[in-house]
Amino acid sequence: MKIAVDAMGGDYAPDEIVKGIELARDAYPDLEFLLYGQEEKVAPLLQDKTRITLVPAPEVIAMEDEPVRAVRRKKQSSIVLAATAVREGEADAFFSAGNTGAVLAAGLLIVGRIKGIERPGLTTTLPVLRKPDQSSFVMLDVGANADTKPFNVVQYAVMGQYYAQSVMHVAKPRVGLLNNGTEADKGDMAHRAIYEALSGMDDLNFVGNVESRELLNGAADVVVTDGFTGNATLKAIEGTALSMLKLIKGEIMSGGLGGKLGAGLLKPVFKNVQSAMDYSQYGGAVLLGLKAPVVKTHGSTKAPTVKNTIGQIRELLASHSADQLVTYFADHTEQMAALKESLK
Amino acid sequence: MKIAVDAMGGDYAPDEIVKGIELARDAYPDLEFLLYGQEEKVAPLLQDKTRITLVPAPEVIAMEDEPVRAVRRKKQSSIVLAATAVREGEADAFFSAGNTGAVLAAGLLIVGRIKGIERPGLTTTLPVLRKPDQSSFVMLDVGANADTKPFNVVQYAVMGQYYAQSVMHVAKPRVGLLNNGTEADKGDMAHRAIYEALSGMDDLNFVGNVESRELLNGAADVVVTDGFTGNATLKAIEGTALSMLKLIKGEIMSGGLGGKLGAGLLKPVFKNVQSAMDYSQYGGAVLLGLKAPVVKTHGSTKAPTVKNTIGQIRELLASHSADQLVTYFADHTEQMAALKESLK
Repeated sequence: MKIAVDAMGGDYAPDEIVKGIELARDAYPDLEFLLYGQEEKVAPLLQDKTRITLVPAPEVIAMEDEPVRAVRRKKQSSIVLAATAVREGEADAFFSAGNTGAVLAAGLLIVGRIKGIERPGLTTTLPVLRKPDQSSFVMLDVGANADTKPFNVVQYAVMGQYYAQSVMHVAKPRVGLLNNGTEADKGDMAHRAIYEALSGMDDLNFVGNVESRELLNGAADVVVTDGFTGNATLKAIEGTALSMLKLIKGEIMSGGLGGKLGAGLLKPVFKNVQSAMDYSQYGGAVLLGLKAPVVKTHGSTKAPTVKNTIGQIRELLASHSADQLVTYFADHTEQMAALKESLK
Repeated sequence: MKIAVDAMGGDYAPDEIVKGIELARDAYPDLEFLLYGQEEKVAPLLQDKTRITLVPAPEVIAMEDEPVRAVRRKKQSSIVLAATAVREGEADAFFSAGNTGAVLAAGLLIVGRIKGIERPGLTTTLPVLRKPDQSSFVMLDVGANADTKPFNVVQYAVMGQYYAQSVMHVAKPRVGLLNNGTEADKGDMAHRAIYEALSGMDDLNFVGNVESRELLNGAADVVVTDGFTGNATLKAIEGTALSMLKLIKGEIMSGGLGGKLGAGLLKPVFKNVQSAMDYSQYGGAVLLGLKAPVVKTHGSTKAPTVKNTIGQIRELLASHSADQLVTYFADHTEQMAALKESLK
């Protein structure tokens, strides 16, 4: 398996990306890497070239570049060249910590959609807290599309189910629709239509509506939603978790506990809490629905997360979940056409 | 000032509602109450009838009743009778901890909208953590409407601004639009149109797009959004805060700290954290845009929250913010008509 890597994307690129790829190379002897970046910057960082081929990419797409325009114009950038390698069959997957919009655009425009899938969905894995039989769930779309149609959400359910099977190893993942209440008639007309469509799909373990309040309690294994609501929900969870940790630390430091004693005693507790909430341990966000895995991590990604994410990509490739999606949508063209018509 | 109270709504009604109203009566000598409920249940709970008039309401709208149908059919219910008292000018505001949908429906159908306001918005106050000069922000709509139009969000901005001025006492509240990024061109076409409309309003301190990740950090004083996204965001914040507290307590109890010592030392810290996150201290959710304040608290409301919420209603009434809104929308009919046309 060969992975095309954007060495130039992210706040700590190329240093931490190169370091992470070397960690991943050492951990997974069955992987090879094509590392795209500016030769003069990347070459000196590479300690050991075993199974890593540095491919020169003179241009860089910056974090502030307008994504679609940058992908169209910067043909020699690491993002465009890495995505092109996947399209040409020279690599099996594409990884980047760079400009999210540009990675999505390169995935969509260069790697390309699976036939029958209208919109890819950005999929993230989040922790489930204190539930013995479930440690995580996946949610999509968390922001690939700002303007989502009901039919797209129905397709996300199928895509999310295959993803949960391959990555979370859940045989029949519970699929829930994010809504403003759990009853069947909740939400606007679009959500009621999606609910009905999902209820009618035999090969889906649809458990009905779920509320964002219950996500971290494990209300479902796969949560589907439009990209706008998914983005707001994901960022609300992230923001609240970070703010709470800061608040608690601040309270301890300024409280009557005698700062140092309390902080010292609590170090292991906070380490566990931070690690439970740290969803970078599950790897990056996957743009599902493309012909090959395209995976994006936070801009702040450092080497250990790069390594974890490569491990996640390796599992995705080994499970052949993209091929399974190709087969599913090839086998269900009539059902999908009928669903699309009914959701107009 | 006279407040019409639904004594029968909420998980701990009528006991905790009556108890809370007596606390509020004792705290605010300028308030009178009309208490609507089943006489045989409420009368025995009332310790002291000073400034409290018990009005018999033989019917009860239950939590599971279909809201609009219940409001139409149960004419002798506490919710319908209390809202009617406000419409008839016998009371100045309406408070309930009951069936949210029914309270919203009674507000909309019985109390009625301010002329010029198309949709009322459910408005909640949330904490800002660890920012010296800001302790809270308000967000609307958090769920009165599942199907919101861009023009409604523009009106929420005006409503939210007046509310923040009267309740938070901020002279020029910073108004932000919840979006999937901070740049001006973020979001779908609807959000770009709302952004442009808000930018063009001279009497609004519009600070641009805000992301849900930054809300608890105080990104704005007033956050406007459609009712579906607002509902998902609010519930994600609530759920994450609750899950984090549970997680941390669990880690401490099961950790190597020596449970009792750690838990004992940490009690004051957790009390502070819980109180910082407990937004019931700010009172209930207000259905803004109606001719008089209609305020709803959580179903789990107990007496102290009832009392806080009555304090909040008292401030709302004293600030005459409903009258200010009436004036604003009466003075801006042409501007509003033009905005509505441009947002079609």
